[in-house]
Amino acid sequence: MIQERLKKLREAMKAAGIDCYIIPTSDYHNSEYVSDFFCVRKYFSGFTGSAGTLVVWADTAALFTDGRYFIQAEAQLSGSGITLMKMGEKGVPKLTEYVEQELKEGGTIGFDGRVVTSSDGMKYETIAEKKGGRVIWNLDLADDIWEDRPALPTTEVWSLEEAYSGEPTEKKLARLREKMEQEKADAHILTTLDDIAWLFNLRAGDVECCPVLLSYAVITAEDAYLFANERAFSEEVKAYLTENGITLKAYDFFYKYVSAYCSAHEDARLLLCEKQINYRLKKEIGDQVNILDKPNPTTLMKSMKNPIERENLRKAHLMDAVAVTKFMYWLKTSVGKVPMTEISVADKIEQFRRENDSFIKPSFHTISGYGANGAIVHYSATPEKCADIEAKGMLMIDSGGHYYEGTTDITRTFILGEITDRMKQDFTLVVRAMLRLKDTRFLYGCTGANLDLAAREVFWEKGLDYKHGTGHGVGYLMNVHEGPNSFRYKLADMPENWVFEEGMVTTDEPGIYIEGSHGVRIENELLCRKGEENQYGQFMYFENLTYVPIDLDGIDPSAMEPKEIESLNRYHQDVYEKLAPYFSGEELAWLREVTRKIS
Amino acid sequence: MIQERLKKLREAMKAAGIDCYIIPTSDYHNSEYVSDFFCVRKYFSGFTGSAGTLVVWADTAALFTDGRYFIQAEAQLSGSGITLMKMGEKGVPKLTEYVEQELKEGGTIGFDGRVVTSSDGMKYETIAEKKGGRVIWNLDLADDIWEDRPALPTTEVWSLEEAYSGEPTEKKLARLREKMEQEKADAHILTTLDDIAWLFNLRAGDVECCPVLLSYAVITAEDAYLFANERAFSEEVKAYLTENGITLKAYDFFYKYVSAYCSAHEDARLLLCEKQINYRLKKEIGDQVNILDKPNPTTLMKSMKNPIERENLRKAHLMDAVAVTKFMYWLKTSVGKVPMTEISVADKIEQFRRENDSFIKPSFHTISGYGANGAIVHYSATPEKCADIEAKGMLMIDSGGHYYEGTTDITRTFILGEITDRMKQDFTLVVRAMLRLKDTRFLYGCTGANLDLAAREVFWEKGLDYKHGTGHGVGYLMNVHEGPNSFRYKLADMPENWVFEEGMVTTDEPGIYIEGSHGVRIENELLCRKGEENQYGQFMYFENLTYVPIDLDGIDPSAMEPKEIESLNRYHQDVYEKLAPYFSGEELAWLREVTRKIS
Repeated sequence: MIQERLKKLREAMKAAGIDCYIIPTSDYHNSEYVSDFFCVRKYFSGFTGSAGTLVVWADTAALFTDGRYFIQAEAQLSGSGITLMKMGEKGVPKLTEYVEQELKEGGTIGFDGRVVTSSDGMKYETIAEKKGGRVIWNLDLADDIWEDRPALPTTEVWSLEEAYSGEPTEKKLARLREKMEQEKADAHILTTLDDIAWLFNLRAGDVECCPVLLSYAVITAEDAYLFANERAFSEEVKAYLTENGITLKAYDFFYKYVSAYCSAHEDARLLLCEKQINYRLKKEIGDQVNILDKPNPTTLMKSMKNPIERENLRKAHLMDAVAVTKFMYWLKTSVGKVPMTEISVADKIEQFRRENDSFIKPSFHTISGYGANGAIVHYSATPEKCADIEAKGMLMIDSGGHYYEGTTDITRTFILGEITDRMKQDFTLVVRAMLRLKDTRFLYGCTGANLDLAAREVFWEKGLDYKHGTGHGVGYLMNVHEGPNSFRYKLADMPENWVFEEGMVTTDEPGIYIEGSHGVRIENELLCRKGEENQYGQFMYFENLTYVPIDLDGIDPSAMEPKEIESLNRYHQDVYEKLAPYFSGEELAWLREVTRKIS
Repeated sequence: MIQERLKKLREAMKAAGIDCYIIPTSDYHNSEYVSDFFCVRKYFSGFTGSAGTLVVWADTAALFTDGRYFIQAEAQLSGSGITLMKMGEKGVPKLTEYVEQELKEGGTIGFDGRVVTSSDGMKYETIAEKKGGRVIWNLDLADDIWEDRPALPTTEVWSLEEAYSGEPTEKKLARLREKMEQEKADAHILTTLDDIAWLFNLRAGDVECCPVLLSYAVITAEDAYLFANERAFSEEVKAYLTENGITLKAYDFFYKYVSAYCSAHEDARLLLCEKQINYRLKKEIGDQVNILDKPNPTTLMKSMKNPIERENLRKAHLMDAVAVTKFMYWLKTSVGKVPMTEISVADKIEQFRRENDSFIKPSFHTISGYGANGAIVHYSATPEKCADIEAKGMLMIDSGGHYYEGTTDITRTFILGEITDRMKQDFTLVVRAMLRLKDTRFLYGCTGANLDLAAREVFWEKGLDYKHGTGHGVGYLMNVHEGPNSFRYKLADMPENWVFEEGMVTTDEPGIYIEGSHGVRIENELLCRKGEENQYGQFMYFENLTYVPIDLDGIDPSAMEPKEIESLNRYHQDVYEKLAPYFSGEELAWLREVTRKIS
């Protein structure tokens, strides 16, 4: 099937005079997750991971993806004739190096300029120029080939009350305009969906798991334009927009509007984040205005959760913890007695979450990996390929929910019966790493690159590692992956080096992945807080948000340092105190047992 | 006296039409330490620290310096009428912000363009432009005022044999030219003294404590020009230069040469490090050539010590350890019995070093701080102000030597009698931090920003800190402060984020400074080595180079983690094994005692 689709694509490429067609994984907004309409790379390659770029030539094709997906991609590409390019591995060229190597003299590179970032588009332009060729960027070749392509999503838009957002739209706009004034910007173009949703206090469901709406925005000192599908707005929400001075325009009209604005305002100063915009927008803007290339001011504003958001988040995490812990009770007491599969337990955990009125939907596809499947970092069970769960080994579940009070993301690995010594050592190591980062205190000014070591050092000391960052920012009733904060040691992965600010929420999720055997990941969320200020400066610490027992059946206390044991005991005491009011009878006794002190 | 000198300077400023005269601490080569000829800032301010910039106006003056020197500068500036600006403290403007604030409309900024970096000069230019004023950069106002100004140094130049350098000049030049070819550079301009000395395998003593020669260099595919004072070269060294295709030209001729070269080669591509060159050079280069602004390739090459240098370094450090440990024996057994002062013990430690034939000279001014003076990070005792040392409290000595086999830098804090509990806790904390960083293992790709936490976390966990980096690179028979490697957490302090490469040597020197009471710093040097390579990547570790006992009288084992005690015991066992052959009788018994196992 894949080969058939690629054949059609190659015919279309030939007809358009394209030698190399590039299909990244993106929508028009540089979103991490994309709605079905945009799953072109998946359509042409069969690879379902959340990140990857397909490059198709007349006779060959290659898929570039990262360490999270090597095992999965290898399996899914098998038989497709597509070569897997393992990004970051020794000897594997970068995508652009590869395109440059392979492109013939005078060759043409093709792509849909709306799904390619401005900077990537410029790189392809440079490569084509070097080879005396050119770039064709205004064709979406999938349009004609993909017959049953889904429509662009148009889910209902709703507005977030101040009791949830913590800050009215008016104030957010005023803060943004203040920043614009500081930068002497005449207009600000915003294309990232979570920034737009945050700024206007709007939510929808246009991207699966992400409560955002397909939209663009342009803000000036007087006006605020929202480009989105009018059909998605109720009269009430429209009225809310009007009240806040926001003018609704058609989604498609955006590029024309920008082009016209730029022609009419030759000397205008446009604030935007080049890294985020797509190549087509860059072309529409043209060369006659001045671009102020800065991170979108809303990115930092949004990441610093306000006091109302923080208080809500504590509630959301408590609801979530009750659900996950009740799931844990069910799992540990039912396994081996009732049939269960990776998918059925994922459904079960969602069912426990749904018992809260505040629950809206999962914040991402639950990763439920049993046994060796736990070693696949972003594993996704399918009805065709889904392991039965038995009363032995380990089950890793990475899941989360959107509540009106915020978004959660938690991973627990559960011990379902007998495990090997190696598994126990690995489990203990991951817990130690998680606790050490959680307990870190630091001076204001630190970035994730400074702090990543706090988790990773116990791995490195044993010659081990995990091929992913230690943690990512999390939105408030928003994308589960949110910048700018993260924990990762490779500076190249975060060129801007954002310092940790009070109110930022970041996950702490070290893991270990032994191919063919098992995987362990433990993930809590941490809220950055100001601590003591003294002669040395402003100290910061992390307030823990996630209160779900860590399965003591996986712990070897003799492999832990005394302060780590102390930290785990303190954590479990807190878990017990927070959750006990929601448990009774046998469940409560069980909770007391699984949060017991160890030594 | 200072006020008198400033008065003369102000008269000269007035005569030249200068409103603001800026005097940094620099020679023409952006060196950290400068020879007496260049000590203009010291001459006009009285402040003797190694870093600081004096800004003089018609009625006021300000000195900017960093946290290492706050206490010292406060004392030395007292009565001068010069305001101390504590860099990095809350509410203290940056130097450029301050100049911009204070400069009147149409005002003129003056400085000697040879002692101001290109980028600083450009900033002053921008400020002057904003104010509708201008910059005067070709005047050294000290020339006429400073009557007994020392001459430019001209010490004898000697060449380093391959048994010490590990790589002949020819090969180094070939490697550099390969880099130039990769960058398509027609010429490379090198103005940093240690890079030039390394490249040509030359040494001299033009900068106190730094074995370098005042010089510039220009390298093309065919030629290599060395601009230096011919009088400093013996016939033998001249012959060595000729053999290696190096043409010697007059030091002063450099600027004319560059100016002529740039006029004659309009499209030339010039490789140089903008950050390192001075403003005058920038002006001489002009706008008609293409500048490839990159770190000097020699900076990375030089930092990665070759196998012969590494083997020599081990020897140098062993000689140094024997000297410092013999000093320690003398100190601990003589204190309270023979009179001693901060200066006399500094002389004593040098005397022990001089017993080695290979010893050339100290690698920097010994810091010998007793009691409260130990809290002054870069304290310098003077004959007028030098504490007597008694059999109580703590003495911190930071010292090092140049040997033919390499350069050393070591700090030990010695317990001379009774100390308080707080002192013991502080001492133990510093030792813990030093050991933890020394023992760190990490994946290739880490920078100092990733690893600094390994030392600092035990401080931060207690709400403590030290206001300096945890460590700096060290040259091989070269500058004791050498880039690009270092341990520090503030990314802004090292914008290029160099990863640790095998062969880099870095100090590991956490400290604690309690103003008015005491200071502790413990410093070892670490050689970066490749460890195991496995599926996770290339692991790296640090080979310890410094083997001198850590004074167990300052240690509270109950404040240490088990793995730290183990590390200290392992270290002391190594110290004993390495040093025992050089000790006998009572000294050997003492050595065994001070390197005993603790628990």
